[in-house]
Amino acid sequence: MTGKQMKLGAFFMLPGHHVAAWRHPEAQADQVLNFEFIKQQALTAERGKFDMLFLADGVAAGATSSSFEQHASAYFEPFTLLSGLATVTKNIGLVGTVSTTFNEPFNVARKFASLDHLSNGRAGWNVVTSSGKEAAQNFGQQDELLHEKRYERAHEFVDVVTKLWDSWEDDAIVYNKESGQYADATKVHAINHEGEWLSVAGPLNIARPVQGHPVVVQAGSSDAGKELAARTAEVVFTAWQTIEEAQAFYSDVKGRMAKYGRNPDELKIMPGVYPIIGQTEKEAQEKRQQLLDLIPESVGVSRLSQQLGIDLSGYPVDGPLPELPDVSQINGNKSRFQLVKDLADRDGLSIRQLYQHIAGARGHREIIGTPEQIADQLQEWFENGAADGFNVMPPVFPEGLNDFVDYVIPELQKRGIFREEYTGTTLREHLELQRPISQFAKKAIAVES
Amino acid sequence: MTGKQMKLGAFFMLPGHHVAAWRHPEAQADQVLNFEFIKQQALTAERGKFDMLFLADGVAAGATSSSFEQHASAYFEPFTLLSGLATVTKNIGLVGTVSTTFNEPFNVARKFASLDHLSNGRAGWNVVTSSGKEAAQNFGQQDELLHEKRYERAHEFVDVVTKLWDSWEDDAIVYNKESGQYADATKVHAINHEGEWLSVAGPLNIARPVQGHPVVVQAGSSDAGKELAARTAEVVFTAWQTIEEAQAFYSDVKGRMAKYGRNPDELKIMPGVYPIIGQTEKEAQEKRQQLLDLIPESVGVSRLSQQLGIDLSGYPVDGPLPELPDVSQINGNKSRFQLVKDLADRDGLSIRQLYQHIAGARGHREIIGTPEQIADQLQEWFENGAADGFNVMPPVFPEGLNDFVDYVIPELQKRGIFREEYTGTTLREHLELQRPISQFAKKAIAVES
Repeated sequence: MTGKQMKLGAFFMLPGHHVAAWRHPEAQADQVLNFEFIKQQALTAERGKFDMLFLADGVAAGATSSSFEQHASAYFEPFTLLSGLATVTKNIGLVGTVSTTFNEPFNVARKFASLDHLSNGRAGWNVVTSSGKEAAQNFGQQDELLHEKRYERAHEFVDVVTKLWDSWEDDAIVYNKESGQYADATKVHAINHEGEWLSVAGPLNIARPVQGHPVVVQAGSSDAGKELAARTAEVVFTAWQTIEEAQAFYSDVKGRMAKYGRNPDELKIMPGVYPIIGQTEKEAQEKRQQLLDLIPESVGVSRLSQQLGIDLSGYPVDGPLPELPDVSQINGNKSRFQLVKDLADRDGLSIRQLYQHIAGARGHREIIGTPEQIADQLQEWFENGAADGFNVMPPVFPEGLNDFVDYVIPELQKRGIFREEYTGTTLREHLELQRPISQFAKKAIAVES
Repeated sequence: MTGKQMKLGAFFMLPGHHVAAWRHPEAQADQVLNFEFIKQQALTAERGKFDMLFLADGVAAGATSSSFEQHASAYFEPFTLLSGLATVTKNIGLVGTVSTTFNEPFNVARKFASLDHLSNGRAGWNVVTSSGKEAAQNFGQQDELLHEKRYERAHEFVDVVTKLWDSWEDDAIVYNKESGQYADATKVHAINHEGEWLSVAGPLNIARPVQGHPVVVQAGSSDAGKELAARTAEVVFTAWQTIEEAQAFYSDVKGRMAKYGRNPDELKIMPGVYPIIGQTEKEAQEKRQQLLDLIPESVGVSRLSQQLGIDLSGYPVDGPLPELPDVSQINGNKSRFQLVKDLADRDGLSIRQLYQHIAGARGHREIIGTPEQIADQLQEWFENGAADGFNVMPPVFPEGLNDFVDYVIPELQKRGIFREEYTGTTLREHLELQRPISQFAKKAIAVES
């Protein structure tokens, strides 16, 4: 059990990653806003020794979409839910998505520092940018920012947040009752950041996080996203269909790190996987078909339109896609656009086949079969430079997560590529990432030496 | 036990409301960021049948203050802490302070709706505005907004947040697995708010809060603050030294409600009280003196300077205050300024006596004595049109809260003016406040009739 260990995230998206999961016979009406249910699932993930659970986020209800009525779009805000889960779990990491587009860095730095203290060092921040007109209009803007501008702001935003986390050195709180000194002011630093997008004085009003920095996670796979990841991320969530594509991405991103003075081990690349598990391959295939049959046609077409940024509602659903623009003209999620385009070009799928293909996994890799077959596929990617681990996306909760924990995890453990017990207490320790020294403490050391 | 019942809030400010609480022999070094400790105190407040626990907030560390080193200024962000407490408590209301000055209403509406679902209807929002240059500079601004401008924005902000809470009608989620209809789009509403300060499209991306609206709390006592309270608040926290002042405020604010179509019972006025409890009056006085002796002089002077918005560090500490400007020239907390000015004018206190006076209670009413004496004073205000209840500010945690729950609460219960058990499950039920109908549902009813 001393070989390299796979990292695993449990991607909590209730009632499940499949677009029609809520219609599954096992799904419950109130599941999405039922904390007790979500808590039981978090404890299940912890029983499975997952490194972390992960929450995505959005800042618009999608009410202008033609399929709004057909899917769940009312859910917990990630921060309240993660804070609630922090106090009823012990070991599992808690990663939340927070946008850099419609938030203030002081508020974001503070909330993650606070979650890190609340959970004794288990917080992680999935850094995203927000696109879409509907989101922009919830925040006083007429339309979305351009893709490049969103990433410029995101780069600067991450810098400001990490400086704020560092603004209290680890030993800034003295707590000397006798002398009356609570804090050492020489170890609490203004950051005085003045940049193109942001101006923030600091210091933060909370002690340095338990982990130094909560773990920084990134999900974009565009060129700007890859550069941001190479410079600042410690975990990357990504979506690839084939091992060749995943390997190319893996070496591309890790190759960009040296110029920022970083070692490839300081970043864990974790593609999404959407497992459909059966005791036999036939049972798994039947489960897949059961879900596909639950997708209302309007939802499928709308989901595919959204992924491409092109309205497909006028085209025959069993015909091919219309001519697509080049990816350079896309202002939304460039990597997802390219992924669908490649699928259509390579396999000649119809609109229905394409939406069925993405309806569950949303462009992530579907792996279907017995626990052994699923473990084989994960192991292959893990041992061949395509992944440091995986972000697991159960099609339907609770069944999808329960089956992964009860059947697939033991198989991975048997092969010696996944932990049997937690060996550390912080998310950073689970992921084998070092605790960063405060950049202000570093400066002090530099002056002294 | 069927008479009018007093409402009680437990004002959680760790390590205690006294400025030198952290130096008290009982205080622990890590108390402020120790969730287990805070959880035990929340359970104690719940055992005492408090209506709610309440968290204040600030968005600057105060590192430019000359007394920065002498007091605790690193603490949990209220939302993460309340969400953590929501899942380990059952009955007590959870009220958090969130500023309208440096936040987006979409984010604030969402977080409180989320906390309300997480806690099954126990969330409350203490609406404040943020003053001070140091706070402004953490949010890209050079200096604070003017007092009137902050309140203009606050009025509009509260309107937008309540509209967002209403944007999903109570029965908007249909969840018909058979037909594939999850939500009824005719019951989910864009708010399309376009105002002087804010522009927000909506709808929110979470179902209507359990309470309809989380309870709206207000703490300002300036003229603008009173008007905001009369129009929108359901609870007012306030600070008065004498029953006459408290009665005048009580009838003033309740008198302003009619012009907004509101009944006086729809608003609970809860002055802060700072109780020092002894088994004898002498023991209580000794406890008071013990705390006063722990105040470093620099902290006392700095605290008083801050409350007045005037630097007093050059004046003899045992001499009088310098000439003060008129309250109309103050851009900070006008009501606190006036309170100190009145104290100095009335009783001719020195700078030291003034800072000792405000060091604990910060301008709130100190009540010192045996449990019976404290209950007498609370009962007097409660039964004579000065208060609907109180926000209790323990000098030091855990002792101050434990003693209130163990000795004062039973005395109030014996007199039949405080509940023996919770009779409802939501904060709104504890406070005897009605659940509001969605303003969009109201419109639908109006059209039909």
